[in-house]
Order: sequence, then C-alpha cells, then structure tokens
Amino acid sequence: MTSPLMARAIQLSIENVRSGQGGPFGAVVAKDGKIIAEGVNQVTSTNDPTAHAEIVAIREACKKLGRFELTDCELYSSCEPCPMCLGAIYWARLSLVYFANVAADASKIGFDDSFIYREIAQPHAQRQIPMIQIMREEALSAFRAWNEKPDKIPY
Amino acid sequence: MTSPLMARAIQLSIENVRSGQGGPFGAVVAKDGKIIAEGVNQVTSTNDPTAHAEIVAIREACKKLGRFELTDCELYSSCEPCPMCLGAIYWARLSLVYFANVAADASKIGFDDSFIYREIAQPHAQRQIPMIQIMREEALSAFRAWNEKPDKIPY
Repeated sequence: MTSPLMARAIQLSIENVRSGQGGPFGAVVAKDGKIIAEGVNQVTSTNDPTAHAEIVAIREACKKLGRFELTDCELYSSCEPCPMCLGAIYWARLSLVYFANVAADASKIGFDDSFIYREIAQPHAQRQIPMIQIMREEALSAFRAWNEKPDKIPY
Repeated sequence: MTSPLMARAIQLSIENVRSGQGGPFGAVVAKDGKIIAEGVNQVTSTNDPTAHAEIVAIREACKKLGRFELTDCELYSSCEPCPMCLGAIYWARLSLVYFANVAADASKIGFDDSFIYREIAQPHAQRQIPMIQIMREEALSAFRAWNEKPDKIPY
C-alpha cells in the first residue's frame, strides 16, 4: 500500500536530514484525508527531548483544531513511534497510526528505544533510573481537592 | 522521607486545581538540590494532550540549561509518571525520579493510564488504535541519508 500522506511524512523526514533540525523523522496528522499538521524531529535544534516528529505534529494538530482530542484524526509517521510518542497517541485518542520504518531500522542508525520498553516493563526498584515513592499522604490532598471540583475534566 | 522539592511539586498540584489550568499534577526538575524548572498539567487549558506536569517541567529545564539532556538532574512529580512521561524521562536521561501519588490513586479520580501499559504490551494487530506498517522501502532512504551525515547526533 502506498499513501500520499505517508509520502509527505517521508519527504519531511528526508528534508529534516538536509536542514539539520534533528533526526530523520517526519509525521503528519490527517483529518478527512487531508493534512492538518506536520512535524519533524527537533530534539537537538530546539533542546527539547520531547520534540519527536509525532509529538510536534500532535501538538500542532490540537492547536489548529482548538481541542485536546484527535479522535477523528489519523497519524502518519515515517517511523514506528517510541513509547513516549505512543503515550501521546493514546492521550490524544488518535483513531489510527500508519508507520513506515520499523523500530529495528531506527536502532541500526543509532536511535534505539528498546531500552525504554525494557525499563517500563521492570518493577520500579530494578530500573536504571530509580523511581522512589515518597509523601503520598500529602499529595493525596490535591486529588481530594480535585474530586470536589464541580467542573472537572479528567485529562 | 519528606523533601522540600516534593513539597513544592505537591503545592503546584494543589494550586493547579484552584487555578483550573488542568489536572491535579505538579512536577519540578532539580539540579544540585535546587529547583530549575516547574510544571503543572495544562492539557485542557492549552489544548495540548502532551502537557503533563512532567513534560512541561522537562521542556522548561532543557530550555533553561540550553541542552536536551538532564543527566545531572532529578525529577520530583506529585504523581507516578504515565508511559508518555516515562518515555520523556528516559530520553532526557534524568538521573532519578521521586513521585508521591501512585498510579492507582490517579485512576480512582479518573486519570487512568493502565490502558496505555496494556496496549503497549500488545502486538500491533491487537491494539485498540490500529498500527499499520506501509512504505518501509521509501522511508529507509531518509535513514540512509542520515547515515552519510558527518555531524549527526542520534537523539
């Protein structure tokens, strides 16, 4: 299967190598078959470790539509999304994800996300980045205050 | 264990309920025991599904330090990070994560991230958001171009 929307995501990934904004990754968000937002990896050029192509495109699409859900949209990414981007995809409630390069291809050129999957699957105590739980009782007061709000949107 | 840095993250989470910017979540990034960036959940107020407290704080810390790695920094979050935020934590290479409320506490007030863990653990074909792989050969050209770059930073 070929797709002009994926072709655009791939074109963005190629242009991003030339422009030097960041890694060879591009993504577009489409609604009703039309592109409404584009993104490229901008991690190194903007000093933003969250600026993966998918996140940039999702943020831009939400900004354009004026909402935080993309249930009627599809994502086309030039590469299989990493766990961070998958998380964003689920929070944004996209309906469908197309991707081209697979994670193993990215790993071969130095972009390896498999350690994140392995880490997330480990119990806290066994992770490379220690996760330490403290002060739960104090923090619960914010949750109680939230529960009492009449107009809360849990997002 | 109590910590003034976590106390600040919790204070931010409480203030965020009052201000109505978003969910009851706050986070700070600290370096050498001092806060260098703060974040609160701003998903609903800024129409940005990626604006979790941890992501906001990480982006701000990187901006302040002028780099995309936080290897010498620690994160204090008022709640256990979701998979998206964990991904960002790993890409930013934070050294340590403290959290207060646990994921089950957040789930009880409507913020449930367990479906994302379940989804990520599934093969592509069995996910709620279908993941479809197309046009790999075309996309690989961007990776080949990347490989030929002399000054590449794989991030």
